[in-house]
Amino acid sequence: MNEFSFIEYLKRQVPRVKHVPVGIGDDAAVIDVSAGKRLVVSTDAIVEGVDFTIHQGAKHPRAPGTLMSPGQIGRKALAINLSDMAAMGAKPVAFVITVGKPAYISTAWLKHFYGGLLKLARRYDVACAGGDFSSAKEMFASVTILGEVLPRHCVTRSGAMAGDWIAVTGALGGSILRHHHDFSPRVCEGLFLAHHITPTAMIDVSDGFVQDLSHILKASGVGAVLELEGIPVSSDAKRMAKGDRDKALAMALSDGEDFELLFTVPPWRKVMLEKLWKKEFPKVRLSWVGKIRGKTPVVTWQRNGKNIPKPKLYHKGFSHF
Amino acid sequence: MNEFSFIEYLKRQVPRVKHVPVGIGDDAAVIDVSAGKRLVVSTDAIVEGVDFTIHQGAKHPRAPGTLMSPGQIGRKALAINLSDMAAMGAKPVAFVITVGKPAYISTAWLKHFYGGLLKLARRYDVACAGGDFSSAKEMFASVTILGEVLPRHCVTRSGAMAGDWIAVTGALGGSILRHHHDFSPRVCEGLFLAHHITPTAMIDVSDGFVQDLSHILKASGVGAVLELEGIPVSSDAKRMAKGDRDKALAMALSDGEDFELLFTVPPWRKVMLEKLWKKEFPKVRLSWVGKIRGKTPVVTWQRNGKNIPKPKLYHKGFSHF
Repeated sequence: MNEFSFIEYLKRQVPRVKHVPVGIGDDAAVIDVSAGKRLVVSTDAIVEGVDFTIHQGAKHPRAPGTLMSPGQIGRKALAINLSDMAAMGAKPVAFVITVGKPAYISTAWLKHFYGGLLKLARRYDVACAGGDFSSAKEMFASVTILGEVLPRHCVTRSGAMAGDWIAVTGALGGSILRHHHDFSPRVCEGLFLAHHITPTAMIDVSDGFVQDLSHILKASGVGAVLELEGIPVSSDAKRMAKGDRDKALAMALSDGEDFELLFTVPPWRKVMLEKLWKKEFPKVRLSWVGKIRGKTPVVTWQRNGKNIPKPKLYHKGFSHF
Repeated sequence: MNEFSFIEYLKRQVPRVKHVPVGIGDDAAVIDVSAGKRLVVSTDAIVEGVDFTIHQGAKHPRAPGTLMSPGQIGRKALAINLSDMAAMGAKPVAFVITVGKPAYISTAWLKHFYGGLLKLARRYDVACAGGDFSSAKEMFASVTILGEVLPRHCVTRSGAMAGDWIAVTGALGGSILRHHHDFSPRVCEGLFLAHHITPTAMIDVSDGFVQDLSHILKASGVGAVLELEGIPVSSDAKRMAKGDRDKALAMALSDGEDFELLFTVPPWRKVMLEKLWKKEFPKVRLSWVGKIRGKTPVVTWQRNGKNIPKPKLYHKGFSHF
């Protein structure tokens, strides 16, 4: 049983209740607390040796490319959660955090950690509402973020419909080089989309494009036709692939931690979105990568409109167990 | 810099905002989301080797008494958070959880973990609203709990006033024997108190009675007179002290993880509370342990009304760093 099947197992264990209209299995949970707005809550942890490496000489030889400063680690602990809010179309409001602190982490280190974290919090006007420390053998930080959304603006993974266009922000792949520790969560873009377009489904690309698209397809009960030439391959992926185009594409399709928004929009909104997007986010690329088709969660690949075999992936998608 | 001074440092780093009337430094944070009710959120993590030991032969020789079944560990991860809701007088509504999973933990183990957790969740009608898994070198579980409270019923640590009586539920000390992994969080008692008495201040005893009382005294800017004979010493503390009365008392005053409610009530509500309590919670002991006095957060100890030196403590109170 891997992570996803275990989550499926848990979903069966957890009774559905009226005040949690969206629970386990989406980017965030929605909890009904007020007549007008909905509270959106999401949680995500980062762990030393998995998501980042703390410089201690040669103590952590694995995970190259994850050596990060304490400020970057703190920033990332919040940023990954902000990305989940973005994917719901929610406005982040506050967060709480638990930190596991090994003895070799000093309070000076922790100050830098919180420095990076709180700087990002200020930028998005998110309140640090509390937390908890524990001693631990390795460093970890678990953030829970709370946000608000008008019910009609809330975007889940499960609303994609045949005929919808599939779009993705930014560029994909190679985040290990740098992007994963300095990305700007697409909070403003997510809010904009929720307010002006209301995508039928949305997710942030954290496990890898193909895997995250499959989450939308499964949740919505639909399939997709993807146009290979439409996939926005990042310059970092190209750099890492050293001229090997197929390798760069494989990275774009399967590298994790892009933290871009992947979403579906009804066909009649495509032109309006393109127009508004260029005005609102002139520096953020928007790519149309395919369309939703059929009722089975399978992907058909095309190149210039002709069916091709499924391209190779660089990773199989990440599972923690 | 220890944990508490670091939290003070953080409080200075975090700007006070209007929509978080209670932030860092209380049992839970209060976030304004609706006109009528207030959302209450709290987070608490448990870590392997610190809060519990997983049976793996002799792999964890330290922390005797903390060997717990996976179901007990799952139960505790939620119970400690429910205890925080109780201490706010809030009704728990939902929770999210992040789990760090080492390779030696099987999915069968995790099922038992969630079994214990979800059983307790059902008992208190709390929804599991989501979560996140990560691989890790040691097991940890970080729960964030969300609750609701009417603004007039919300009880913080900071309202104790001179003349208030100090009360505590249940009995104190020796929780390491058994209580810390099977305690019933005082959710019903906390809700009852908030609705019918509205304590001026309340906290759950997790760090040890003397240390947790000092949190109330500091937050409220008051002192206390305590009556040594009034301290409810648990049978487990007595058993562990093997007939040494002073040792049992020292444990009751300083052992952590009692998860009882410690609170202050205006003098004119004492008789009413006693009457209502006996009717509502006939099996739960309620002890009057002293009174709030003065404006300096110091404790004066008395035995039968006469001042005595400060009694010895068994622990100095727990700090994670």
